Amino acid sequence: MMKLDDCRYEGQGSFKLSDYPTSAKVDKADRSHIEELMANNIERMIELQDKLYAQGTEGVVIMIQAMDAAGKDGTIKHVMSGLNPQGVKVYSFKQPSKEELAHDFLWRAACHLPQRGEIGLFNRSYYEDVLIVRVRGLWRGYAMPKRCLDMSEKDFFDQRYRQIVNFEDFLYENGYRLVKVFLNLGLDEQKKRFLARIDEPAKNWKFSAGDLDERDLWPQYMDAFEQAIGATSTKRNPWYVIPADQKFFARYLVSEAVVATLAACDPAYPQLSEEDLAGLEACRARLAGE
Amino acid sequence: MMKLDDCRYEGQGSFKLSDYPTSAKVDKADRSHIEELMANNIERMIELQDKLYAQGTEGVVIMIQAMDAAGKDGTIKHVMSGLNPQGVKVYSFKQPSKEELAHDFLWRAACHLPQRGEIGLFNRSYYEDVLIVRVRGLWRGYAMPKRCLDMSEKDFFDQRYRQIVNFEDFLYENGYRLVKVFLNLGLDEQKKRFLARIDEPAKNWKFSAGDLDERDLWPQYMDAFEQAIGATSTKRNPWYVIPADQKFFARYLVSEAVVATLAACDPAYPQLSEEDLAGLEACRARLAGE
Repeated sequence: MMKLDDCRYEGQGSFKLSDYPTSAKVDKADRSHIEELMANNIERMIELQDKLYAQGTEGVVIMIQAMDAAGKDGTIKHVMSGLNPQGVKVYSFKQPSKEELAHDFLWRAACHLPQRGEIGLFNRSYYEDVLIVRVRGLWRGYAMPKRCLDMSEKDFFDQRYRQIVNFEDFLYENGYRLVKVFLNLGLDEQKKRFLARIDEPAKNWKFSAGDLDERDLWPQYMDAFEQAIGATSTKRNPWYVIPADQKFFARYLVSEAVVATLAACDPAYPQLSEEDLAGLEACRARLAGE
Repeated sequence: MMKLDDCRYEGQGSFKLSDYPTSAKVDKADRSHIEELMANNIERMIELQDKLYAQGTEGVVIMIQAMDAAGKDGTIKHVMSGLNPQGVKVYSFKQPSKEELAHDFLWRAACHLPQRGEIGLFNRSYYEDVLIVRVRGLWRGYAMPKRCLDMSEKDFFDQRYRQIVNFEDFLYENGYRLVKVFLNLGLDEQKKRFLARIDEPAKNWKFSAGDLDERDLWPQYMDAFEQAIGATSTKRNPWYVIPADQKFFARYLVSEAVVATLAACDPAYPQLSEEDLAGLEACRARLAGE
């Protein structure tokens, strides 16, 4: 069975998206077993989050990128629902506002970073600025000085990849860890899921005709993903390329990635000093004497 | 007479603070002439700001660092008062809040960046995190993971200098220019100004006994400034080390730095396309026909 390690890319060797399957082809008979493993992971996440929050030294940002219908929302719902919302900050990267466009492209993310001790959940992320912005050529219309735009597409995005690596390095050095997830969906599976969204009234709201325009650009998007993941994966901040055609297995693998990252933080409840412990004893005595 | 170029350090050669005077020793008889030049600069700033705002492609951040009583507030008041507040965002870096301390040290600055087209004014800045934080050893008590703190003081701040240079490079590449000003005050002049704050009731509110504790650490602060300026000055983002013992001349030099930076942006009112011009003509006709 495919493991988390098979999905992790840390920047060694060249990255080819075609080396990563869109389906792990797990037997359906194994589904309940996988779901049990995932339930265990969620228990573990809850324990680790409690310590992470109490200790307050390390922040974790989970970010999920994918094509439409790859299961972003479902993954967030199923993997993260057990967490204590007190320590979780969710932020969805929608079409940028005028105010956001008038700042540097990392501004949105920087402003919505969780505190250390918290878990941030980015539904999409600043990687949109090297994905749709590249595929749609949006950067050419940006209100920026000539020195920032007067270059080839390759140079512009190579610069952004470098800026992203610097930013993520900076976060690591300042007490953050990232879980960068690409839900790797197959073209055929997307078609099936779109048809379901069209056919089932309860799913209609999830579909818009524009989704097909994006689908038409599938090869360009895969190229943009391949380049972005290839250029921004590091040992500190690897990408996880998760096969997404089987939802239950994708969710399990994402839970594996989150648990692995939280465990790497090695969080522990703060230990009280002798003095603080003596203070607690005094409080016990005071209460007992009431 | 001392010029702006004499104050600019772009990172070439080693930086020695003692090479930069705390007074330009301008004759008092020249004061009214200097103030005339400064009034011209303010006129020029107003023109340039109007275009910068209309064009909206480039943002400018002015940040002022100094010891107490060096004239930060007065400089801001006298140099910036002519600007249109609509396009100016002022942010004062006070003692960081719990929320701020729970984020990376650039978070405050990132969240308070002006939009492109605006002028941001930082009264103090993230440089506090390599100044007071270094002199007072505050970093050792930070709630951060072991990997972030388990190093020598030198390594910790060398890392921060690198992170600052990366951040400022990133800003430049994303359409921002910085005006980094150090108001270089002499130890004797600070004493005089403190005594005035103690002696004159209208100035009492500006003084607190803690200011003398900081003064006791003068050599350590000068060392921290020297290292920080030495390590973070680049051609793109130089430091201006402004002699601050004569307020009127310091203000003039700061106005020179601001004008030079705004002029480097070379802002221009947006030009309408043929189509837009035709649209305007149609509007003229419609109004005339009322």
